Amino acid sequence: MLAEQLACVRRKAPLVHSITNYVTANDCANILLACGASPIMADDPGEAEEVTSLAAGLVLNLGTLDQRKLSAMLLSGKRANALGLPVVLDPVGAGASSMRTASALRVLSEVRCAVIRGNMSEIRTLAIGAGHTRGVDAGAADRVTERSLAEALAFVKSFAAKTGAVVAVTGSIDLVTDGRRAFCVRGGHPMMGRITGAGCMLSALTGAFAAANPQSLLEAAAAAVCAMDLCGEKAAARVTPPDGSGSFRTYLLDAVYNLTPEELERGANYELR
Amino acid sequence: MLAEQLACVRRKAPLVHSITNYVTANDCANILLACGASPIMADDPGEAEEVTSLAAGLVLNLGTLDQRKLSAMLLSGKRANALGLPVVLDPVGAGASSMRTASALRVLSEVRCAVIRGNMSEIRTLAIGAGHTRGVDAGAADRVTERSLAEALAFVKSFAAKTGAVVAVTGSIDLVTDGRRAFCVRGGHPMMGRITGAGCMLSALTGAFAAANPQSLLEAAAAAVCAMDLCGEKAAARVTPPDGSGSFRTYLLDAVYNLTPEELERGANYELR
Amino acid sequence: MLAEQLACVRRKAPLVHSITNYVTANDCANILLACGASPIMADDPGEAEEVTSLAAGLVLNLGTLDQRKLSAMLLSGKRANALGLPVVLDPVGAGASSMRTASALRVLSEVRCAVIRGNMSEIRTLAIGAGHTRGVDAGAADRVTERSLAEALAFVKSFAAKTGAVVAVTGSIDLVTDGRRAFCVRGGHPMMGRITGAGCMLSALTGAFAAANPQSLLEAAAAAVCAMDLCGEKAAARVTPPDGSGSFRTYLLDAVYNLTPEELERGANYELR
Repeated sequence: MLAEQLACVRRKAPLVHSITNYVTANDCANILLACGASPIMADDPGEAEEVTSLAAGLVLNLGTLDQRKLSAMLLSGKRANALGLPVVLDPVGAGASSMRTASALRVLSEVRCAVIRGNMSEIRTLAIGAGHTRGVDAGAADRVTERSLAEALAFVKSFAAKTGAVVAVTGSIDLVTDGRRAFCVRGGHPMMGRITGAGCMLSALTGAFAAANPQSLLEAAAAAVCAMDLCGEKAAARVTPPDGSGSFRTYLLDAVYNLTPEELERGANYELR
Repeated sequence: MLAEQLACVRRKAPLVHSITNYVTANDCANILLACGASPIMADDPGEAEEVTSLAAGLVLNLGTLDQRKLSAMLLSGKRANALGLPVVLDPVGAGASSMRTASALRVLSEVRCAVIRGNMSEIRTLAIGAGHTRGVDAGAADRVTERSLAEALAFVKSFAAKTGAVVAVTGSIDLVTDGRRAFCVRGGHPMMGRITGAGCMLSALTGAFAAANPQSLLEAAAAAVCAMDLCGEKAAARVTPPDGSGSFRTYLLDAVYNLTPEELERGANYELR
Repeated sequence: MLAEQLACVRRKAPLVHSITNYVTANDCANILLACGASPIMADDPGEAEEVTSLAAGLVLNLGTLDQRKLSAMLLSGKRANALGLPVVLDPVGAGASSMRTASALRVLSEVRCAVIRGNMSEIRTLAIGAGHTRGVDAGAADRVTERSLAEALAFVKSFAAKTGAVVAVTGSIDLVTDGRRAFCVRGGHPMMGRITGAGCMLSALTGAFAAANPQSLLEAAAAAVCAMDLCGEKAAARVTPPDGSGSFRTYLLDAVYNLTPEELERGANYELR
């Protein structure tokens, strides 16, 4: 099932418009190319809508946010909605500042999102309408463990049902759900937390999978999550001293570039709940 | 002939002021350093002119454009013209939005460009004054093939003659011309299209070659194009599984760093037409 | 002594808020993660202060400066001062334009900096209140050599005493002083000048060390400088053809990731003066 999602990305080479932060924009563009998609990045309100209309999907990433970018996101998001293109929202740092939380909630209220991809602290902030996160990483209290899994899953399912979006919460266990069915994905590697942009890259990847598979958004998002986890594992397996996080980052892009649909199907580690 | 162009970059270590996009700015700075030049990036209208006056050349790259950046480009471009410094224009995404097309045309009309470096879709947009490109890559109809070469060459020569600039159109065959003489360059590798910024990096490299060789801009631009193609080939030759596009990107910078003038002279694959 | 500084970074994993340039932001975030700290980057005046208040330290880097970023820096700097968090200032390109010089002086006058980290041309510009630098690298006349060391040290000590900050001037010999005691650090490798962002990355690293060791800022800054030099040497030692500056950059992050406190203690090459 997941194989076909990746095969579609490779076959269709969807153009994905990303309005994203400048810290990881390069990594996001590179992972889009590595998976077979094509990136375009334009964040000025004077052209954002028009660029979106060329694309097959839109990714809105709230890192290094400012008002100009937010305006572009709202314009592009509405255009994508009008054209029926899937929109992926990454509410980076929601909860870390009032501006970030308010902006994330505004995007959510004005743009119909196909997929929301974040860590548990960010998603809780969106669900509650306020929150506190320690920076851009999930707080310890928000970690999904085997013990807290059932409760976390119920919460994420209800948030998905409420928003009408597929919600992908990533952490040591990843939850991907449309409110009814859920993929619980185990995998990935701690080194993914030792490079910047692993979350942003996953959101970009999700944008590519959603753009290529707009009829099966839950499976598309699950495939992106499984692909990232698998590639993180493969990259980590290549790291031997004196390699470290610099090499890991390179190997991660390499792994995405070389990932085959069959390998994704075989290597994905999920259960449906 | 091309050897001397690179030797000059290495000897003079020109300071190149780049006003460029945030997606590939890091790659552009790194390729400038790798080839022996020195980068400076400042994009605020409050200091752009002054920074240009310290430099030996200027690169204007229209990626992730906004009005503030455009103002800085116009100020810096005029200052470079007044000081006789070569200006390289990379009309990234011209044709992808009205704003991008209009901005590229405005730079072209207000700033005398020494070199214009783009893909065929972007150059056609500039020549026609309007256009449609699929994102930031050349459209299929605009690809230069052996069959369409003569016609493409005539078109690019006439655009060069009209603008007074050296025009470098890159694709599977690269055309570099001042309107009279033309270098047709064959080389490079498809993996260059699988990382972000190959075009931007080439424009930065062209800025370094033009800054170090302002008396021979056609040869300078041709040398930059041949160097990039050759380094792309060398980098691709190092890629063996599990390497992929991540490693390729690193190898590309390595190749530029290690490229010698003699190697460039020997490896460049061009014909004069 | 230096071992404990690094051990503290690893143990506390301080959140470091960086307001920085888009050219090297990715490298700065990655080196923060590599050393064991956690990066957060937010540069909008609408959220900067609030984000600073989540952090254990603040880095202000003047690269690709604009008025919006400067406002955010002043707000965040004052908040950090009010909270007693160490502020590291990197006056990138001070002297390269009037705007950059004036902005650096303004930050210095409105924000109490714990550490100022720059090259000799930038530091001279701050000390004199005006200056001329060739781009973002130190001018030849400002290079610290064994011959000019005593004079340079006296100058830097007096600037440190005047500002009340620890001043770290990096070059072929690095000087780190609080105005009374000084670390003269020898080490590093010329390849560090062949990648972009070595200076910015050191400032980020200094932010991590200062945030984790606010009671011993001189030792913290010296430890960051020694760590960077040592990692530059280790990375350069891994570079064998066809490796070049691309691989060096990856190896540098690897070296920071793998650096142990004991290795730093043993490998640091400094004398106290």
